[in-house]
Amino acid sequence: MAAAAPPLKDELDIVIPTIRNLDFLEMWRPFFEPYHLIIVQDGDPTKTIGVPNGFDYELYNRNDINRILGPKASCISFKDSACRCFGYMVSKKKYIYTIDDDCFVANDPSGKQINALEQHIKNLLCPSTPHFFNTLYDPFREGSDFVRGYPFSLREGVPTAVSHGLWLNIPDYDAPTQLVKPRERNSTYVDAVLTIPKGTLFPMCGMNLGFDRELIGPAMYFGLMGDGQPIGRYDDMWAGWCIKVICDHLGLGVKTGLPYIWHSKASNPFVNLRKEYKGIFWQEEIIPFFQNATLSKDSTTVQKCYVELAKQVKEKLGKIDPYFVKLADAMETWIEAWDDLNPPTAK
Amino acid sequence: MAAAAPPLKDELDIVIPTIRNLDFLEMWRPFFEPYHLIIVQDGDPTKTIGVPNGFDYELYNRNDINRILGPKASCISFKDSACRCFGYMVSKKKYIYTIDDDCFVANDPSGKQINALEQHIKNLLCPSTPHFFNTLYDPFREGSDFVRGYPFSLREGVPTAVSHGLWLNIPDYDAPTQLVKPRERNSTYVDAVLTIPKGTLFPMCGMNLGFDRELIGPAMYFGLMGDGQPIGRYDDMWAGWCIKVICDHLGLGVKTGLPYIWHSKASNPFVNLRKEYKGIFWQEEIIPFFQNATLSKDSTTVQKCYVELAKQVKEKLGKIDPYFVKLADAMETWIEAWDDLNPPTAK
Repeated sequence: MAAAAPPLKDELDIVIPTIRNLDFLEMWRPFFEPYHLIIVQDGDPTKTIGVPNGFDYELYNRNDINRILGPKASCISFKDSACRCFGYMVSKKKYIYTIDDDCFVANDPSGKQINALEQHIKNLLCPSTPHFFNTLYDPFREGSDFVRGYPFSLREGVPTAVSHGLWLNIPDYDAPTQLVKPRERNSTYVDAVLTIPKGTLFPMCGMNLGFDRELIGPAMYFGLMGDGQPIGRYDDMWAGWCIKVICDHLGLGVKTGLPYIWHSKASNPFVNLRKEYKGIFWQEEIIPFFQNATLSKDSTTVQKCYVELAKQVKEKLGKIDPYFVKLADAMETWIEAWDDLNPPTAK
Repeated sequence: MAAAAPPLKDELDIVIPTIRNLDFLEMWRPFFEPYHLIIVQDGDPTKTIGVPNGFDYELYNRNDINRILGPKASCISFKDSACRCFGYMVSKKKYIYTIDDDCFVANDPSGKQINALEQHIKNLLCPSTPHFFNTLYDPFREGSDFVRGYPFSLREGVPTAVSHGLWLNIPDYDAPTQLVKPRERNSTYVDAVLTIPKGTLFPMCGMNLGFDRELIGPAMYFGLMGDGQPIGRYDDMWAGWCIKVICDHLGLGVKTGLPYIWHSKASNPFVNLRKEYKGIFWQEEIIPFFQNATLSKDSTTVQKCYVELAKQVKEKLGKIDPYFVKLADAMETWIEAWDDLNPPTAK
C-alpha cells in the first residue's frame, strides 16, 4: 500500500534550527534540494549563517521572530533548539520535517543511503493502528498485513499525525546515561515502523521528526527552554507528551521506527546534565500527570485541546515549580500566536 | 545485560501438540535435545506418534488426559491444537516453550541458524517495560538502553511473564487474508524485542511462545476449541487476551518480537474459514470486553484473577452466545484441575 511515497514537494517544509553554517546540507542535497527549507537561527542574530548554494530557503533570526510575533515572541525559546517550533508556525504547508544540523544520511544494512524524508512521508500517508497491537508491526507496509485475531473493524486505522524517526551511531541518551556509557553507539537497524498504542506515552526526540501540521501543528510547541529558563533538553519531550495526549483524544496516530539518520556528534554530557537535572526530577511527576490527563468532549480541535491542557498544567504542575505556571501561560500565548499567523478563516 | 542466556535445562519444558510423527525435531536437535519434551497427542489415541531417537520426552494422548483429569478433562479441547495447554498443566518446570510441529529453524540475515529457545530465555530473564514506551525497543538488550526522557523510576521494569516469538515465511493470517493473499510470505526480519504496553491487547499466536509458568501458567488456558465446539483457531487468541489483562493487573510484562521460527506450511484457508468465521464476528465484541475488563484488588494471584475473569466472561459474553457460558465454566474447571495437579502447598 505504501510502496512509493509521492514527493509532496509543494506540501512539505523542512525546518532546521541552527547556530552555524549548514554544511551538513551538502550530504542531504539529493533528498532535500527539491524542498523549501525554513531555517530558524538561534543565538546572536548578527551572525551570518551560510547555506550551500542551490537550496530554496527562508531564514529567521531572533530579530525576525521578535518583529513578527511582537510581545508574543516570549513564547519562543532563545539559545535552545526549542526555537525550531517558530518554523512550524510560519510554515504554510501541510507537512513538516525537522532535523538537527548534526544529523547525516545513514545507510541501510545493504549499504544504500536512506532517504529519511521519503520514509517519513510514507509513514504519514498511511494510517496508524493505535487501538490494537499488530505483531507484524506496520500492517500497511508492503509484504505485511494484519495478523490473525486483529479485529476487522479496526483495520481501517486512523490518520497518522506524527512520524518519529530514529538514529544510528550516537543514541539519544540523557546526561547520566551518556556519562555512564560514553562509548555506546547504536548499530542495530530495526527494520520496522509501528504505531505507539493509545494510552501509551513515549519520549519523542526532535532530531528526526515528521508531522502533519494540519492535524497536529498547534500542539507541536517545544516549550520554554534555554536562555532565562531553569531547564533545557526537554523541549521535544514536552511536545511529545502533549501531542500524544491530544492525538489519543482526537483519534490520531503516532508512529515510531524507520527512518534512521546518522547522528554524528554527542553533545557534552556535563553541559547536558546542567540543563537536564531539574527535568530528571520533574519528569517523575510530569509523566504521571500526562498519563492521567483527560480532555473534555468540547475540545474538538487541536487548539482547544492544547488550551485545556495548558490550564491543567498550570493547575496541577504549577505546584511543582513556578516555572510550570510560566510555561502554561506560554502555551496559551503560543496558540494565540499560531492563530494570528494561521487565521482559521484561511483554512 | 542479557548477552548470554543460561540454558535453564532443568527449569524448562518444551510442549508440542501433534497428530503425526515428530520428524521436524531432527532440525531442532542441537537446540532441543538437552530439554525435556511434553508431547500432547491430539486425535485418535490408538495412533503411534514417532519421536526421533535421543529426545527425552513424555507423551500424553486423549486416554491419558481423561485418566489424569477425570471429569475435569472436559476443559481440554479435542481435535484442536488447543489441547497443548494440558502440557502446561502437567509440567513441573518454571518455564514453558511451546512450538507447532510445522515450524522449523529460521536463519537470521547473516545466514546463521536462530536458536529460538535461547532468545525466549533471554526475553523471559530480563525485565519488561510496560509503563512507558522505549523508542530503542528493549532497553535491556546489549548495546541498547533507555533513551532521554525515560523516567528513571520506571527503569527497573517489571518481571517478564510471556515471550511471544514471530514467524518468517508463512505469516499467521486469518482465513480471509489467506484467501486474498495466498502468496504473501513474511521475509522482513525485524531485529527487535519490545514490551507490549500496559492497557494494550495483542493477537498472541501459540506457534512459537515462551512463558514463565510460575508467574502466569494458570492463565495460559487455550479454551474450548475443535471437536464439539462452534469455533477453532481462537485458542491462542483467547489465552492472549486473558493473560494480557491479568499481566497488566498483576504488574507483569509481555514481550513480542525475536525470535523468529520458519513457518513451513500454510493451513487450508477454506478449513480455517469454517473454524474461524464465528470468531471473526465475536472478536468484535470480545476485544472491547477485554479492553474494558478490570480486576478487583482482591485478585492477587493468577488463579483468583482467572476465576474473576471467568465470571465476567459468563456475565458479559454469555449474552453473545451460550458457548461463552460453557467456556466460562471450562475456565473454572481448568483452574480446579490446575490446582489439583499443582497443589498450592507444594510451592
